[in-house]
Amino acid sequence: MLRNEERLLERDDIASRPRIVIIGGGFAGIAAAQALEGSGARILILDGQNHHCFQPLLYQVATGALATTDIAWPIRYVMRNREDVTVLMLEAQEVDPSRKHVKTRDGEIPYDFLIIATGSTHSYFGHDAWAEHAPGLKSVEDAIVIRGRLLRAFEQAEACVDPAQYQKLLTFIIIGGGPTGVELAGAIAEVARRTLPAEFRRADPRDARIILLEAGPRILPSYPERLSTYALEVLSKMGVEVRTHTAVETVSPSKVIAAQKAIEAGAIFWAAGVKASPAAHWLGVAGDRSGRISVAPDLTVPMCPDVYVVGDLARVNEADGAPVPQLAASAKQMGRYTGRSIKRRLRGEQAPPEPFRYKDEGSLATIGRNSAIVKLGRLELTGVVGWLFWSVVHVYFLINLRSRLLVAMSWVAAYLTYHRGARIILDQPQGATKESKKDPPTTKR
Amino acid sequence: MLRNEERLLERDDIASRPRIVIIGGGFAGIAAAQALEGSGARILILDGQNHHCFQPLLYQVATGALATTDIAWPIRYVMRNREDVTVLMLEAQEVDPSRKHVKTRDGEIPYDFLIIATGSTHSYFGHDAWAEHAPGLKSVEDAIVIRGRLLRAFEQAEACVDPAQYQKLLTFIIIGGGPTGVELAGAIAEVARRTLPAEFRRADPRDARIILLEAGPRILPSYPERLSTYALEVLSKMGVEVRTHTAVETVSPSKVIAAQKAIEAGAIFWAAGVKASPAAHWLGVAGDRSGRISVAPDLTVPMCPDVYVVGDLARVNEADGAPVPQLAASAKQMGRYTGRSIKRRLRGEQAPPEPFRYKDEGSLATIGRNSAIVKLGRLELTGVVGWLFWSVVHVYFLINLRSRLLVAMSWVAAYLTYHRGARIILDQPQGATKESKKDPPTTKR
Repeated sequence: MLRNEERLLERDDIASRPRIVIIGGGFAGIAAAQALEGSGARILILDGQNHHCFQPLLYQVATGALATTDIAWPIRYVMRNREDVTVLMLEAQEVDPSRKHVKTRDGEIPYDFLIIATGSTHSYFGHDAWAEHAPGLKSVEDAIVIRGRLLRAFEQAEACVDPAQYQKLLTFIIIGGGPTGVELAGAIAEVARRTLPAEFRRADPRDARIILLEAGPRILPSYPERLSTYALEVLSKMGVEVRTHTAVETVSPSKVIAAQKAIEAGAIFWAAGVKASPAAHWLGVAGDRSGRISVAPDLTVPMCPDVYVVGDLARVNEADGAPVPQLAASAKQMGRYTGRSIKRRLRGEQAPPEPFRYKDEGSLATIGRNSAIVKLGRLELTGVVGWLFWSVVHVYFLINLRSRLLVAMSWVAAYLTYHRGARIILDQPQGATKESKKDPPTTKR
Repeated sequence: MLRNEERLLERDDIASRPRIVIIGGGFAGIAAAQALEGSGARILILDGQNHHCFQPLLYQVATGALATTDIAWPIRYVMRNREDVTVLMLEAQEVDPSRKHVKTRDGEIPYDFLIIATGSTHSYFGHDAWAEHAPGLKSVEDAIVIRGRLLRAFEQAEACVDPAQYQKLLTFIIIGGGPTGVELAGAIAEVARRTLPAEFRRADPRDARIILLEAGPRILPSYPERLSTYALEVLSKMGVEVRTHTAVETVSPSKVIAAQKAIEAGAIFWAAGVKASPAAHWLGVAGDRSGRISVAPDLTVPMCPDVYVVGDLARVNEADGAPVPQLAASAKQMGRYTGRSIKRRLRGEQAPPEPFRYKDEGSLATIGRNSAIVKLGRLELTGVVGWLFWSVVHVYFLINLRSRLLVAMSWVAAYLTYHRGARIILDQPQGATKESKKDPPTTKR
């Protein structure tokens, strides 16, 4: 029987405690739930997926270094010690701020406070059809799709009898020179130059061309120029062709037209842009250009003082007027801030809260073996030092001890041997070598 | 460029060395390739999948204890030190024994010796439509489908508001009381009783009903009666309802009719039968009732002295006339025997080989924590001793060191905590909660 015979729609009415609904179990949603510990409220986390995913390491799954389960855990596992938190694998379909209800497939859920943390998804700048030909990297499923296409191209090259087709199969295009594009390009270069060669007999994986396309004047535009230049040098040494000032005009199956030139490819990956998940219309507000919801300095939605928007979905400005960047760190900070604000309001504090202030925790991107860039305030690290810093930080932030150990072990093993242990191609999800039947699923995180 | 400008169809003609084609990279195919080391021949392994899978542990992936990549490795990785072995991710479509060619999508491949090791797949006894409603467990993809359906049923129960629907969601039916069915039922019982309860708030996973249906008079019919009885007792203690003499009449979405009674379920799994992969018609021979090819005592196909059939696909009798069982151990033994036979023929030995003799290496099945049964000749083990024996044997046989370590670590961790670390639900492959759009892919191993 259902425990205490409670029902989805009645339970919170039975209890007199305030109800807080969190939509989205990503960094922001989890941080909010954690900050609400001891609040006395009942907390409900809704997510269409059963798992929280450590997105900064997705590119390692996409290139076969880590297993999906090394970087993803059931949300309810993360929250297992919190009797006040209920996790429901349900997608929010709509919000009614006037009646204070969230609509799901299984009925309406009332709230006293609502935290919307549905994150962002790929943006193809209006060309949604490109998604099929150039999958992006936002979810575990995306990573499996990319891994499948990448490895399958090498497999097909091994069986290939036509030299032109062979070269095409071994051409990989990454669109977008931000951190994800750089990390993906670097990892693919390592797979091609180091991991695979000893295992192929007819094809030579070192023949792979890895092309990174960036529309702007330099890669990693959010980093200081010195670090961009360093990254460019390292990538070039690794054999990645970096083409800046090269805007993509068309993406079709196995072909990209950029700067008026066509390039044929064995696989194409998208790292060029994200847009907020479509939550703005739930609240009847207009999102900004990328769909983000402009929030007040206390992260509430104007006119809806009980609705908070946090993470990638929130548009809020720093003291200097620049928008807070869409990072894991800022998402966590917003979640934590919101949890604490609500806790204060529940205690009856009347004073308006201090406005949200983003604290720069630095930004990091790894390029390859022994090479990463780190910007932390005025500190700029590159090379081995940056890479060690990056490794320690990432292992540290992985949620549970077991994964930390496994990931650390996988990395040590991979470092010593260049081996990547998670290189299986799954039949279904990539389904989809070239003539993908179905778009890769998009996340709402 | 293609190394040495060799082409798929020409390479083996250029080389004067004999060509051995192995179809299938399962236990039998890999063992054959390993036994052919130093033969001087050129060996080609064809498989539609890129990976070799350690099938005996698939049920652990299906129940969230291990990651897919803990038990599967690229075939070319397994063969990485063998310069004489080329692995092509290509499915064999036909064999022409008169012209000694294998047909693939990418052209014909000539052979001097052919080893067919395409294994077996699920048998639904003529009811192929049941596959959609009751997936079986033969491949990594199957395991992901089963894991998704199992975990999703608990997720849906947590959000469920209707008591009847709740009980239905938490009813799991396993059809078939052989080793796979028993292992699956035992593992599902542990997931429901031990792993999940602390993480659910509305549903109580301990409410799960786990029903194991067996058409015959007892479970584990291939084991001595004493061990069957022991397994039955342990399963019953774990809360598994075992129903013998219960033949399944119909399987529909979320419902099974067996022994004239209908049972509704949140998920249904198939462990009732296997049939050989459809290779018999390639050779123009009639398979036996389950599609196996009857081979001569030296494992060659009558009238095709250069074609060997090994593993689950081969029907060959033991000295006492009983057919050799379809096990990993027998597949490996047949592969090894065949590799050695061909090596001898390549050296020009004229003497007919000793006939293949199956050596019983024992059979093992685990039922749950601290409980396994082992039959090894006259030795019969149960309980903790059996379970320890089972654990050591399985970890030992896992192919590579890294996986051995990881699997051992995962088990130790799971044993101590009941935690199962690989419990993510993937969006695509299970695609497929109840209204599956597509049959789970079947393997050819």
